[in-house]
Amino acid sequence: MGISSLRINGQRLQTTLEDMAKIGATPGGGVQRLALSNEDKQARDLFVQWLQDLGLEVTKDEMGNIFGKRRGKLDNLPPVVSGSHLDSQPKGGRFDGALGVLGALEALRTLNENDIDTIRPIIVVNWTNEEGTRFAPDMMGSGVWTGALDKDWVYQRTDINGIPVIEELERIGYRGKTSATKWPIHIYYEYHIEQGPILERNNKLIGIPRGIVSLLWFDIYIEGEANQVGPTPMEGRHDALCAAAEMILKVDQLPRKRGGNLVATVGAIHNYPNSRNIIPDKVHFTVDIRSWDDLHALNAWNNLKREFKVIAERRGCSIHIEETSRVEHAQFDQRLVQLVSDTAQTLAYSSHSMVSGAGHDASYINQIASTAMIFVPSIGGRSHVEVENTSWMDCEAGANVLLHCILKSANETG
Amino acid sequence: MGISSLRINGQRLQTTLEDMAKIGATPGGGVQRLALSNEDKQARDLFVQWLQDLGLEVTKDEMGNIFGKRRGKLDNLPPVVSGSHLDSQPKGGRFDGALGVLGALEALRTLNENDIDTIRPIIVVNWTNEEGTRFAPDMMGSGVWTGALDKDWVYQRTDINGIPVIEELERIGYRGKTSATKWPIHIYYEYHIEQGPILERNNKLIGIPRGIVSLLWFDIYIEGEANQVGPTPMEGRHDALCAAAEMILKVDQLPRKRGGNLVATVGAIHNYPNSRNIIPDKVHFTVDIRSWDDLHALNAWNNLKREFKVIAERRGCSIHIEETSRVEHAQFDQRLVQLVSDTAQTLAYSSHSMVSGAGHDASYINQIASTAMIFVPSIGGRSHVEVENTSWMDCEAGANVLLHCILKSANETG
Repeated sequence: MGISSLRINGQRLQTTLEDMAKIGATPGGGVQRLALSNEDKQARDLFVQWLQDLGLEVTKDEMGNIFGKRRGKLDNLPPVVSGSHLDSQPKGGRFDGALGVLGALEALRTLNENDIDTIRPIIVVNWTNEEGTRFAPDMMGSGVWTGALDKDWVYQRTDINGIPVIEELERIGYRGKTSATKWPIHIYYEYHIEQGPILERNNKLIGIPRGIVSLLWFDIYIEGEANQVGPTPMEGRHDALCAAAEMILKVDQLPRKRGGNLVATVGAIHNYPNSRNIIPDKVHFTVDIRSWDDLHALNAWNNLKREFKVIAERRGCSIHIEETSRVEHAQFDQRLVQLVSDTAQTLAYSSHSMVSGAGHDASYINQIASTAMIFVPSIGGRSHVEVENTSWMDCEAGANVLLHCILKSANETG
Repeated sequence: MGISSLRINGQRLQTTLEDMAKIGATPGGGVQRLALSNEDKQARDLFVQWLQDLGLEVTKDEMGNIFGKRRGKLDNLPPVVSGSHLDSQPKGGRFDGALGVLGALEALRTLNENDIDTIRPIIVVNWTNEEGTRFAPDMMGSGVWTGALDKDWVYQRTDINGIPVIEELERIGYRGKTSATKWPIHIYYEYHIEQGPILERNNKLIGIPRGIVSLLWFDIYIEGEANQVGPTPMEGRHDALCAAAEMILKVDQLPRKRGGNLVATVGAIHNYPNSRNIIPDKVHFTVDIRSWDDLHALNAWNNLKREFKVIAERRGCSIHIEETSRVEHAQFDQRLVQLVSDTAQTLAYSSHSMVSGAGHDASYINQIASTAMIFVPSIGGRSHVEVENTSWMDCEAGANVLLHCILKSANETG
């Protein structure tokens, strides 16, 4: 059999994804595997088992990142690396992250059963806490590994119950001994669902991102004055929730106001004391701003911040702002993006050039190695929800593109 | 000693309030005694002990309302009743409710130690769940007792963890055997802190409410569509939190827009899934509207409801509205209000005619018996917060007014 007719096993990939989706399965058909939770540990254990079954050399580093290495003929050459993450959003979907990890695993299974050796080693990876829901910031594992985030600072990030990352890494047994420090990578591929409606709207099968938009995360804390609602006249109030409501609408209006490819969202809000007959005195909410143009996003934020301060002052509330995460836009290696595009074409899959609106570990890896991504359609553009879905045929197609991209890159000597 | 020179013991009242404030004491100097919690049970136990120490006949009814009866010379005549509630807001103050219960207790202690008999019996009462924070609606105990609320419906109201009222009543041992059904009351007095800034602003000692404003409580449920924030363009979104933010501002603008003595507040909001990178798909928030003019409040609400529906529709969200509580304004017995005013004047305390912006059990009792209230100043107008405060001297003054009002009414034969 010529190598060009090599295909992954779609049925096996489906079964593997389904087995993984049983861990943290939610009644609505999604999964809940928050980073470093018991469900995340179960998912990691199963993944490590699969790596070992395939005869791969397994390494866990001190951030809990898991690597499975398949030896190359020239095993000292920098490897081709591919993977994503097994953690999920609360009531998240079955494909976000898992498809990239298990798609890469399926590619290696295909190489193994066909006795295909490559010049370079190939590594499949599961990065720790990509989602950033339980512990902010997101993309912690790849962030520390590439040197963008400080390990000791990340270790002390806490969840809503005040439990730090390091404690949970220890507890689930995934604080490895190997240093979480980058080593040379030849090529990094990340296979992922699109998480948006673009491929579906354009009726295309393979999405080929030129890169990933920049990401700004802020935490806003407003403080007003609590009081019994009935006897407190409207004019003397310092209602922190009303101030927050004004700010939330400013965030929502930001993209229209500033133009460009900007999205801006308030996803989380915490109101205190949150009692129906007490004027709220403390509100904490989050702001998420993304754009392909870093400066555009930053200017928009600076404008928004000024508006926040005006609102707070007018309502007699204090405001405190923390920058939780700032990731610059990642422009992928043009030649590698072309290689993915050519591969899709060779396999006779339709494809579409785009940008990724979602952040991925590929953002950080792109800072230290030549990187590209492969997208497949999200049904209805839905993601981060239990009904997130991608057809098995599309999962198979994307994995075939990944397989052949890996093969090409792993046989490059230069 | 002539009865007109009789005074309560201010030091004893202070000590009693301080002892009660130890139960559920918060670090910020307030109390947290949510209805039917362990702290509420402790407060009830102490109160019952004090009633028994005074030789009163103690009755617990099936709603957990606690009555302590002091016999009258004509013991079959309808009694004078006075009290309030011992439950509190989360991180609430030491005076809200407790002052009315323990002020009435202090009046009876004063009568006892001075061997003063009255023609009518006098009853001090602690009503169950006045605050309505843990279990909505508020004023549950007096509401069921007067027949305004249905007992079986109230029994099934649940807290945020799904635990019903009846279960907690049983658990803390305060589901009594006596029916929670009204019996004839001659006069009901409720002594309370003002919870607003009016007395302080007018430099008056005793507040004499003509009545209590009407109260409307609603629960609003909005449903949009969740999605990953990054790859989802702004135009296709159905963001439930943005819809809620628009509505919260409409609530805030309502009093200015409609005029009159209206206050309107959103005190509580719950956002789902409440993750910083997921567009919120479900929001639940509360609306509290109060006015002396019931029809004005209702018209304002109907206007607001229309605006809510327009906002929901424009954002492609569904909206579901529940009316959680509706209490008409309570106009107190004019002659009784005059008696309180005359009593304050006889005692040489300055007084101020006003309305109560806060709801009280007196609202419900007013529907079945002649009712009046006595207010004392809240320092800085603050209430439902840990720093809620009233000077001990003012507490003493108000209790003296209560004592003499009770005495006069309890010696009326007609």
